[in-house]
Amino acid sequence: MQIAMIQDKFVTYDKLDAAHLDRGTFFGDGVYEVLRSYNGKIFALQEHLERFANSLKAIGIGGVDVEQIRSRIENAFLQAQIANANIYFHITRGSAPRDHAPSFELVPNFFLTITELPDDTEVKKNGIWVSTHPDWRWKRCDIKSLNLLANVLARQDAEQKGCGEAILVGDNGFITEGAGSAFFAVIDRKLQTAPLAANILPSITRRYVIKAAGNIGIEVVEKSLTPAQAAAADELFIAVTTKDIVPVVKFDETQIADAKPGKYTKLLIEEFQRFVS
Amino acid sequence: MQIAMIQDKFVTYDKLDAAHLDRGTFFGDGVYEVLRSYNGKIFALQEHLERFANSLKAIGIGGVDVEQIRSRIENAFLQAQIANANIYFHITRGSAPRDHAPSFELVPNFFLTITELPDDTEVKKNGIWVSTHPDWRWKRCDIKSLNLLANVLARQDAEQKGCGEAILVGDNGFITEGAGSAFFAVIDRKLQTAPLAANILPSITRRYVIKAAGNIGIEVVEKSLTPAQAAAADELFIAVTTKDIVPVVKFDETQIADAKPGKYTKLLIEEFQRFVS
Repeated sequence: MQIAMIQDKFVTYDKLDAAHLDRGTFFGDGVYEVLRSYNGKIFALQEHLERFANSLKAIGIGGVDVEQIRSRIENAFLQAQIANANIYFHITRGSAPRDHAPSFELVPNFFLTITELPDDTEVKKNGIWVSTHPDWRWKRCDIKSLNLLANVLARQDAEQKGCGEAILVGDNGFITEGAGSAFFAVIDRKLQTAPLAANILPSITRRYVIKAAGNIGIEVVEKSLTPAQAAAADELFIAVTTKDIVPVVKFDETQIADAKPGKYTKLLIEEFQRFVS
Repeated sequence: MQIAMIQDKFVTYDKLDAAHLDRGTFFGDGVYEVLRSYNGKIFALQEHLERFANSLKAIGIGGVDVEQIRSRIENAFLQAQIANANIYFHITRGSAPRDHAPSFELVPNFFLTITELPDDTEVKKNGIWVSTHPDWRWKRCDIKSLNLLANVLARQDAEQKGCGEAILVGDNGFITEGAGSAFFAVIDRKLQTAPLAANILPSITRRYVIKAAGNIGIEVVEKSLTPAQAAAADELFIAVTTKDIVPVVKFDETQIADAKPGKYTKLLIEEFQRFVS
């Protein structure tokens, strides 16, 4: 008799629900997005849906109607009535007995949450500390997949050091990005960040940061940085959907500038606000 | 009001169950094992539990009593009464609102299934085809984690080519292992396989294959192979818990020997049987 256990309870194998047979859990076989709203308006929904469609395609999950997802998000957001909301959703390949390559087409699982974003005034005003960690992630970080254990381990390491983000460093000695963010330096009045490649998530916030820089006449250099170059930068910040631009005031053991958010970072934060208001 | 959706149904966020808030799904934040029984006897339970304890430690999941897991497995196996069983279990860090590094200790989630293994007589008699795929996995493949999307994508690619396993090739041009198996070649009467390192799972079946080779006087060389070397080998096989040794008779487009399981492979299959009977 085939059986299952959940914690210390026996369950009839044939009665396992979709959540317990989800390929999302067995393999991380799914992709996700995080969006936010600013004052009752969802930001960059179209861009997130486009990236999500790319992620689905990259891992070969078919039969998903992205317009249906859009209307689910919009309906759920209306229901939630949260002005500054974190909108998370994922799709996994589906639920089935564990098998790397199932021989039949599955029905994808959709899951969404809308929660309230914590207030980020202080963190944006004071900045955060970051610490470096080897980039242990897989080779397709351009796909926003549920395989995030490397990110979790790096972030946990950072938290233990009192830092709010881990900055990942590849085997070649160059910074890729943050465990959950894009990473930027201001050096000699230029904005520098790693170029998009298979080892970088095509961050939508990154795109808007670059646009904001253009708007206020800051030159952007897409070139990878070493940790030493980052530690010696005039300013540092991370960019992440839920908080847009967050100043970085300490990099490993090095205080950045006078340990306060830099001038260009503040200008970019201001300029970013134009996109979201 | 914080809300959730499962497929197209709204759910109160506060009523989400542990399975839907499992960090296993959000991040692949967990580790697993697969064991099997031969004719009513679980094989290599101690070794699997030791490796599982190492995996838990490597990702910092604490508070798990491995002896309790052992007794759950043994009890479940008794209940199931399946002679040749596939025993799968995983532990995730726990369930909580999605956050890379939760600020409080979680209760780990345990999940186990015992299912019937399909008959493998034919596959062991005839062998399988394999195809190569870039090794896209993360840098800590020595940890048996739930981050398996790279393995899934490689295996799906193999299936589309009519192959039963994908053989992963690192950026340096050397084979690491199979997407779900260890990989062996017989070249000039010696058995060759990649040495254990951070990019290789410390396979328990691999360990027993090496022991079997010792027992019958076959020299073992732990040295990585290129795909060209593998294609030119006298014999190839994979080793996996659920089927122990499976001959490989085609490697990408190259037929191995006379497309039949090789002499040494058959000797090793026979010798392996001594461990499990």
